[in-house]
Amino acid sequence: MSISLESPVDGPIEVPAGLRNVVVTETRLGDVRGDEGFYHYRQYSAIDLARSKTVEDVWFLLFEGRLPDAAERAGFLAELAPLRVLPTEVQAVLPAIAAAGSAFNPLAGLRTALSLLAAARELPPLWDADPARRKADAMLVCAVTPTILAALYRLRAGLEPLEPREELGAAAQWLYLVTGEAPDATKTRAIEHYLISTIDHGFNASTFTARVIASTGADVVSAVAGAIGAFSGPLHGGAPDRALASLDEIGTPDRIDAWVRAKVSSGDRIMGFGHAVYRTEDPRSLMLRDIARELSGDLVDFATTVEQRIVEVLAELKPGRNLYANVEFYAGVVMSLCGLPRELFTPTFAVSRVIGWSANILEQAGTSKIIRPSARYVGEAPPVPVPA
Amino acid sequence: MSISLESPVDGPIEVPAGLRNVVVTETRLGDVRGDEGFYHYRQYSAIDLARSKTVEDVWFLLFEGRLPDAAERAGFLAELAPLRVLPTEVQAVLPAIAAAGSAFNPLAGLRTALSLLAAARELPPLWDADPARRKADAMLVCAVTPTILAALYRLRAGLEPLEPREELGAAAQWLYLVTGEAPDATKTRAIEHYLISTIDHGFNASTFTARVIASTGADVVSAVAGAIGAFSGPLHGGAPDRALASLDEIGTPDRIDAWVRAKVSSGDRIMGFGHAVYRTEDPRSLMLRDIARELSGDLVDFATTVEQRIVEVLAELKPGRNLYANVEFYAGVVMSLCGLPRELFTPTFAVSRVIGWSANILEQAGTSKIIRPSARYVGEAPPVPVPA
Repeated sequence: MSISLESPVDGPIEVPAGLRNVVVTETRLGDVRGDEGFYHYRQYSAIDLARSKTVEDVWFLLFEGRLPDAAERAGFLAELAPLRVLPTEVQAVLPAIAAAGSAFNPLAGLRTALSLLAAARELPPLWDADPARRKADAMLVCAVTPTILAALYRLRAGLEPLEPREELGAAAQWLYLVTGEAPDATKTRAIEHYLISTIDHGFNASTFTARVIASTGADVVSAVAGAIGAFSGPLHGGAPDRALASLDEIGTPDRIDAWVRAKVSSGDRIMGFGHAVYRTEDPRSLMLRDIARELSGDLVDFATTVEQRIVEVLAELKPGRNLYANVEFYAGVVMSLCGLPRELFTPTFAVSRVIGWSANILEQAGTSKIIRPSARYVGEAPPVPVPA
Repeated sequence: MSISLESPVDGPIEVPAGLRNVVVTETRLGDVRGDEGFYHYRQYSAIDLARSKTVEDVWFLLFEGRLPDAAERAGFLAELAPLRVLPTEVQAVLPAIAAAGSAFNPLAGLRTALSLLAAARELPPLWDADPARRKADAMLVCAVTPTILAALYRLRAGLEPLEPREELGAAAQWLYLVTGEAPDATKTRAIEHYLISTIDHGFNASTFTARVIASTGADVVSAVAGAIGAFSGPLHGGAPDRALASLDEIGTPDRIDAWVRAKVSSGDRIMGFGHAVYRTEDPRSLMLRDIARELSGDLVDFATTVEQRIVEVLAELKPGRNLYANVEFYAGVVMSLCGLPRELFTPTFAVSRVIGWSANILEQAGTSKIIRPSARYVGEAPPVPVPA
């Protein structure tokens, strides 16, 4: 028997318009002002933080509500160091997780490893945990995420996973855990800019998912595992490898116009351009373009040429739409120039975003109300008798 | 250093009232009419379906939009049989998953195993998959869920996991995979009633989570893994072991009144009573009480006495609140009398609900709009300069 794919009672399902403007919770973590091209973490411009602070400073800011002083920073780093080590409970199973599938799926692998870790460490439901325990669990998840991702990558590549080096901060650590080389200061700062600027960004779908799950009182990993799933969705956005793939496809400057026009006329999306919230240039894109130029190279020159021309052609073909390069466009260029393999571009985004998810989870855990909106039934009116 | 738990800028966060009435999507799968004490799956009363159909019939109904005829039923069962077998990709790792933690966490174990399976089978994003592939992936997840849960339980108990028996339907299969004994017709039908009546039930938090993740275009397991997390949350509801634990606590009929009054006066929730949507008796509870009486025994007599008295005392203490027994209350009694161990009560709920999640995921996959509401920033106005 073959099952019919067209169900007789199934028609198109509508997501009501304007949902974006439905407020489902309040937050003190930050905000995105799409019309101003500005976003902030607890009042501080995220771009200014990226230019002057470390990942750990901003992590502390989001978890604690203030930037750390020198003693707090030292304490935070000391607390982090042991949490970065790959847990023994995960170590034995990681080769099997890394080997799953003929295509490498680092996000699924991360979710599998975190899910196993949650059971091994008996993470309590947020609902039952005191704030100290919630925060400790969130610290562990954020600290161990880059270690797990890098270990999965290296196992997959036939390399030994590396032990974190205590003296390296989050940005240098990530580059080291992947490549095995302690990066120079320029690359470290480039990745640090990227990581800080992508820790949080409003109520995107993965952050929203994390908060919905946290609102049920479930544990931190349950919420992060759900967020990873949403994050992996093609409509979530922010997959830097796709934008770099476009640069490959275009190949040479003389082909830009034809490529854009073909994309637009066939109704395809142009990856790396346009944003759900920004009606201006994406402040992350502007910053990453600067960072890319500091790293320099042919790829940067080509990318800036492509960006400029795509914006011009889009302005002509889609007047009034204000389509600019988004965070994806230069992120891939920056990561590539820092020596990260393309299959780790999206996982690199996860390395920072897991901190934002966790800050949102901790904030949501402070409420006791479940986020539970409604669906509207639009089928035929019940009941009909059940046939024998 | 000890990190302060009281962040200076953190106050209480509000979930706006009335969110329950915010419609975030449309559905043709069913509806709950709280004022009427009625819910349906695609126009058919769910209770009527539970009384006369099999789990597979209702599964087909939700996936295909109609009840199967004899040939379709045979085809569906034939398609299911191989999908119920524990996948080899999961088999080797399952003992390590089962052994994680000193407390058994079957839901986390299920999520870990499904996450591994998704990578091993390279589940495509819903966004990239055609309807046939989406449905095949959902069929696999629903079919393998009871097999994984029972295997985890048996491994944990030091027993060999069992191979599914082709001749057993979903309800008898579940009891067999757990206990190793083919159940009699009475127990099979009792569990079948429970499973069918809990497959779907409106836009609960786990179903909502599944749809949010599906709306990003992610794969079926990403959505189910998120739903499992929400389902594990103490505020999600529907944990039949908690209601049975209350019966243990009460112990004897003469202690009912004192127990209820103590709970109410200390502000504790009384598990198994009250529902977010029903203002009448819960139709599932009414049906399960009948089923429990058919199974008979001292536990049933005690439970009915307790139920009656708790409803009376609650009517006195909380007048106008219409608090009745919910699906939790008799579910634990029924499962217990069918020989299921208490640690598998909530997993039994997952065995049926995964079918509802999957039907919702398939329906959501037919849209191309992301479910992405907003949060309201309620902190102090930015920006403040970043200190050096």
